[in-house]
Formats: sequence, C-alpha cells, structure tokens
Amino acid sequence: MFDLIPSGSVSSASGFLAGAVRAGIKSKNELDLAILCSEVPCKAAGVFTTNQIKSAPVVLSQRHIAKGRAQAIVVNSGCANACTGGPGLTDALGMANLAAAKLSISPEEVLVASTGVIGVPLPMDKIRAGIPKIKPTRRGGHDFCRAIMTTDTRPKEMAVQVDLKGTKFTIGGVAKGAGMIHPNMATMLCFVATDAVVNADFLHAALHTAVDGSFNMVSIDGDTSPSDCTFLLANGLAGNEPIDLDNGAAFQEALTAVCTHLAKSMARDGEGATKLIEVIVEKAEDRIWARQAARTIAGSPLVKAAIHGNDPNWGRIVAALGRSGARVREERLDVYLNDVRVMKQGSPIPFNKAEMISALSNSDNVLIRLCLNLGDGQATAWGCDLSEEYVTINSAYTT
Amino acid sequence: MFDLIPSGSVSSASGFLAGAVRAGIKSKNELDLAILCSEVPCKAAGVFTTNQIKSAPVVLSQRHIAKGRAQAIVVNSGCANACTGGPGLTDALGMANLAAAKLSISPEEVLVASTGVIGVPLPMDKIRAGIPKIKPTRRGGHDFCRAIMTTDTRPKEMAVQVDLKGTKFTIGGVAKGAGMIHPNMATMLCFVATDAVVNADFLHAALHTAVDGSFNMVSIDGDTSPSDCTFLLANGLAGNEPIDLDNGAAFQEALTAVCTHLAKSMARDGEGATKLIEVIVEKAEDRIWARQAARTIAGSPLVKAAIHGNDPNWGRIVAALGRSGARVREERLDVYLNDVRVMKQGSPIPFNKAEMISALSNSDNVLIRLCLNLGDGQATAWGCDLSEEYVTINSAYTT
Repeated sequence: MFDLIPSGSVSSASGFLAGAVRAGIKSKNELDLAILCSEVPCKAAGVFTTNQIKSAPVVLSQRHIAKGRAQAIVVNSGCANACTGGPGLTDALGMANLAAAKLSISPEEVLVASTGVIGVPLPMDKIRAGIPKIKPTRRGGHDFCRAIMTTDTRPKEMAVQVDLKGTKFTIGGVAKGAGMIHPNMATMLCFVATDAVVNADFLHAALHTAVDGSFNMVSIDGDTSPSDCTFLLANGLAGNEPIDLDNGAAFQEALTAVCTHLAKSMARDGEGATKLIEVIVEKAEDRIWARQAARTIAGSPLVKAAIHGNDPNWGRIVAALGRSGARVREERLDVYLNDVRVMKQGSPIPFNKAEMISALSNSDNVLIRLCLNLGDGQATAWGCDLSEEYVTINSAYTT
Repeated sequence: MFDLIPSGSVSSASGFLAGAVRAGIKSKNELDLAILCSEVPCKAAGVFTTNQIKSAPVVLSQRHIAKGRAQAIVVNSGCANACTGGPGLTDALGMANLAAAKLSISPEEVLVASTGVIGVPLPMDKIRAGIPKIKPTRRGGHDFCRAIMTTDTRPKEMAVQVDLKGTKFTIGGVAKGAGMIHPNMATMLCFVATDAVVNADFLHAALHTAVDGSFNMVSIDGDTSPSDCTFLLANGLAGNEPIDLDNGAAFQEALTAVCTHLAKSMARDGEGATKLIEVIVEKAEDRIWARQAARTIAGSPLVKAAIHGNDPNWGRIVAALGRSGARVREERLDVYLNDVRVMKQGSPIPFNKAEMISALSNSDNVLIRLCLNLGDGQATAWGCDLSEEYVTINSAYTT
C-alpha cells in the first residue's frame, strides 16, 4: 500500500536536494550536469552493468559504494566516459572530487555516473566550470531528471509515500535510458532516494529484488551498456522503525512499484518507439525460464517490427519462444494477442484479421500472453516496437 | 584446392536434376515450388534448426533422413507450414508423397522443406496441381534457386570442382534466407548436391564442420527460424576413391568454401542490407569464445545501425564484445575498423574521422577486427547493416 505523490521526483523524500546546469557537454544547449545530494549521509546500495567493459564512473562508483555509504550522486549526459582507459578513471575521480568540494563532503561519499557516447574523453574543463554552478534544492529533482536524458524524449520520474505504522516515508526515483537497453542490469541510469530508515542488508536485497522484476525485464535493443547503474540512497530522516526483512513488505512493494514504473517508461520511450509491448509468460516450467521466454519475445526484432506495423504475425512470437531456451511443448501452447487467442494447444485459431489489425493500430500498449501449460513459472517483460526511426537515430549518433 | 564452375548451380554435379514451377503459393506470380532429385539414390546428411518449435517439414525430414539416404528434395516458398499442428504434418507428408509419385521413388526417399509465413496452412490444392508440372533437368538448378527465395533479392548458388587423384567430383550448393537468420543452425534453407563417393559418417561430420564455420557464423536479426535446414546429398556418380577422414581434406575444404560463399551471400543480402559486415576476433581465450564474441558483435543492432550510417562509433563494438560472455581484459584490447586501429591496449587511438566516414561510405564490405590478446582462439562472423528498410520489410509482412 502506497500513495502516489503528484509531480513527485527523485528529491521528494525529506532531506534530498537536486539541481542541474547546462555545462555544454551535450551539443544541444540542454541541462547535462546534475547533482543529487542528501543533507545527511545515507546508506547506499547499487546494482551495476554486467558488461565486462565497464565505464570509468562504474568502476569508481563500485569502489565508493562498497562500504554501503554515500551522500551525493553527480551525473553528466553527453559523454559516457567509457573505453577511455586510465585517463578516464582520473576524470571520473576528478568529477567526484569537484562535487565533494562543492558539497563539503568526502569524495568517497560521492557516486559518479556518465551517459552518452562511448570512447570519447570527458570534457573536464566543462565539468570543472559546471559543478560549482549547480544549486541543489528541494524542488530540483525535475531538473536533475532532464539533465540525465540522452535520446530520451520524455522525463521518467516518480515518487510514492508509504505509511508504516503511523510514520510516513517517501521513495523518489528517476531514470533515463532509451537505447542500448537490454536485460542484465543495469542498462540505464536509475537513482532512487528515500528518507526511510532501512537496515543495510535489507536495502541491498530490496534493490536487487526490485531491479530483477523491473529493469532486468526490459529490452529495447538487446545491447547492454558498459555505463549503467542503479543507486538507492536512504538517509533515514523519516524516523520510522527500522525496516528489515520481517517488516519490509510495504517498502519492497513501493520500491518495486517505482522501479517498475520507471522501467515501463523506459520501454515506452525506447528509441523510435511508438508502442509499449508487454509480454506475459504463464505456466512455464519455472520462473527462470518464464523470465527468459518473456525477455526473448520482448526483444525479438521480428516481433517488434511486426507490432510496429500492426501486423498480427503471431508466428514470430512462437518462433521467438522456441529459441528462448525455455522448454516448450508445442501441443500444449496457448497464445493470446491483445487478449484474442490466436493459438490453442499448438494449433492456429482463426481470428478476424481486419479487427485485430484495427485493434493493434489503435493501441499504444500491446499485450502478448503465452500459456505454456508446463508448470507454475510466470514472468512479465516489457519492450517496444522497432521502427524505421530507431535505425535513423542509431545510424547517425556520433557523426 | 578446387575450381569454381562458372554459372554453377545445385544441379551441377553428375546425375542431379532440378526444376521449378509457379504454383501460386507466393502472392506474386513467381517460381515457388521446386524439386531437386538424383538419378540414383544418395547418401544424405542434414542439419536442422535448434528452435524447439519445428515446422512440419523439419519434423518429417528429420524422420526421413534418419536412415542416411534420400533421392529428392521438394521445397516450396510462400508458406512455412510451421505452427500448423497435426494437419501441417499431414500436409508435409502429402508433399513428400506427391513428389515421390512423380519421381517413382519411395516417399521416404524424399526430403521436404517449406519457407515463408508461419502459422498459415499449406495450400495443398496448389501443391497438388504444381508438383506434376515440374520438369527436372540438368540445367534446372538456377530455377530451383529462384523458387526457394522469399525476401531474398539475389539468388545464392555456387558449384566447385575438385580433382582427387585424377578423378573429378563436383559440389553444387544453393541457399535462401534474408530474415529470421541467426546462428544456431539452420537458420535458412541450404541444399548441397555432390557426385562424390563419400563415406556416410564422414559425410555427416563434414557437413557439420562446414555449417559450423559458415551458416552458424551469420546473423541478420537474431531470430532463429523454426523451418530451416541444410541437406547434403551425395550420389557417388563421380566414381572417385571413397572419401573418408584420412583423404577428406579436399572435400571438406570445397564443401566449406561452398557453404561459406552461400553464408556470406545471405548476410550481404540480409533484409534491407546495404553492406556485408565481417567480424574477425583474434587471440581470444579459446575458439568457442572467439565465435561467441564475433557473433555477438555481428548481431548487435547498435553496431549494425552505426555501420549503416557509416558512423565509426566503435564504442558500440567494444560494448557488444563486453556483453558477449567472452573473457575480456580491457587493457589488452586492440580494435581495428576497416584496418584502422581505433583502440590500442584499451585506450582510444585518435583517427581521421572524416577519412574514416568516407572510407565506410565507399565500402560494401566493412571489416571489424578485434585482438583480445588472451589466447589463440580465432573466429570470423558475418552480418549486415541494419537499415530503415529492414523495419519496413518486417513491419508489413503478412498484412
């Protein structure tokens, strides 16, 4: 049980401030350098990319978060500071030092993230000039949100309030990501800030659970970025009874809801996307395979292109299922497209194609549901359609 | 050592005949039903899709080829006869029966393949009317090649001649496939016919070796089809000394060359493709990981889109390598794009971007080479660029 905070942002929880400036790192004159900070030190948890090529900020932030504490996050867009060798790590550390100096905290309390082009050095002169100009405020979360966007067309943020035995706490979250998005954490940037008092071990576990059911179930293009990460800061200012495994259900539910909202927003705002695709796999052999099947279907270029064209070419859904690795018995398989059954026990079911095309044309959300009838594994994945626009965006990104 | 046969086809080897007709299965008035047959029974080997959802022709052909013999292949395009349940298998068997009756051989000597839309029943009336009209001839290989095309824009065929201790034998091959193409056999249709005398066990082994180094190293879109297969027929009419492991090098080399040519033709003719991408991974920990790395890079939508835009955004190549699973030590990594080194020991190397863009714009073949400097594993994979046209083709395939 939680309440949505109208116009909530990552700085909605007590004691969090955020701000951003136009530092000139992006070629367009847009917000591109931002800080989120807490008035007091926070417990911190992070989940990082599984790509073996890690950006310099990822390497640095993994080191800084290892002790489970942090007080600020500094982020830039327009340059990923990835594949930049030793100098890249020096630059990431420089960025942490500059933010720490500005906030009068230790550099080790600062987490760093960068997003944008790979293989290009960070323009440190612009970072050095920009950081002192950032003015973090209570209402600065929206600016922070805009400053971390790259090819995103819409901001992605949300805050909720939870009442735990009469004491209220808040969870605010923000994310970016519209390309190079594929399951296996953390294929985007996401920052979550809460004023809840949370036990450190549970904070880590809760973040992993939330990420597994949300961001790790999103695929936009199958590419996993070297840059990306999710940070969760908890400053404890809400003064609730400490949250742990035994009383953590409401916190977990609210955190997962924030992450799921942000994950679906990312899928809906995938590069060139016009539709959100939700894939539900039911009665798979187990949950692991249900996840794998749902993600494979949500990521299939042929399924995505068909949905883009409002083409009920469901054979591609079944073909993607068949290569997912999940056990399938064709003669047990039921498939639904926007709640119309198109396959029953492995045989095609005739449907009104004109009606289906019309329904697909008129829906921004397409629902694909498969019932494998083999066990009790269930999972949901999200993706987006594949449009000509995706190719256009990605064929001229650095040139 | 082998010689290319000018204008060679799948019916170039002695004793093979082929032919095709317009049966009206494709919506356009094109060749769409074809037979390849041998004057005498052949030893036969096959490699089939790894998709758990298998088309009816795949199920039937796996059964027929199990005894290692076949004399004919009947193929249609325009309908895959996949996801068609029990009636689909009856139709595939019907197709084998019709071809067998026409050729006066046993139905079990007939292999069947179908390619096209999934989930639609085979129009058996058209198959029944069409098969008797096919007139297989020595020169019919080219028609056979055209009849198995779907979204292919170019025919894919090749024949070579090998001199084995004074006796000549021929290997002719044909393939189709431009979409739903991804490593893991057999993501297209390929038929190879030879008059060589080959030991049965070696025939199987040689086909697997050839497929592993050719078709299984091609990715167009990451989707693996339920339909696809490669068949190799050897009728023995060349009268050479029987080929086995100890004297099989020339046969293997020629067979692999035919398959590699067909595989590269498929990649170059990928749906919407304008360029062939060749990815060479050197000095990986071992060959398995070299293969995995090369295929992941060749299949990355972001790499493919960048190449389409002549964009030397090599960070995407490194990012794809990093998520491939292959062990990478960033500080040892060298990367070359069209023979220009862009990364050395993990650090970017400045290059003339305008020159690189110009070179990419003027080349139909783009070469990506990575040296991991970890071991002696090496592999080559092929793919194609990702264009707006790919999306257009695939967003309106059945509608």
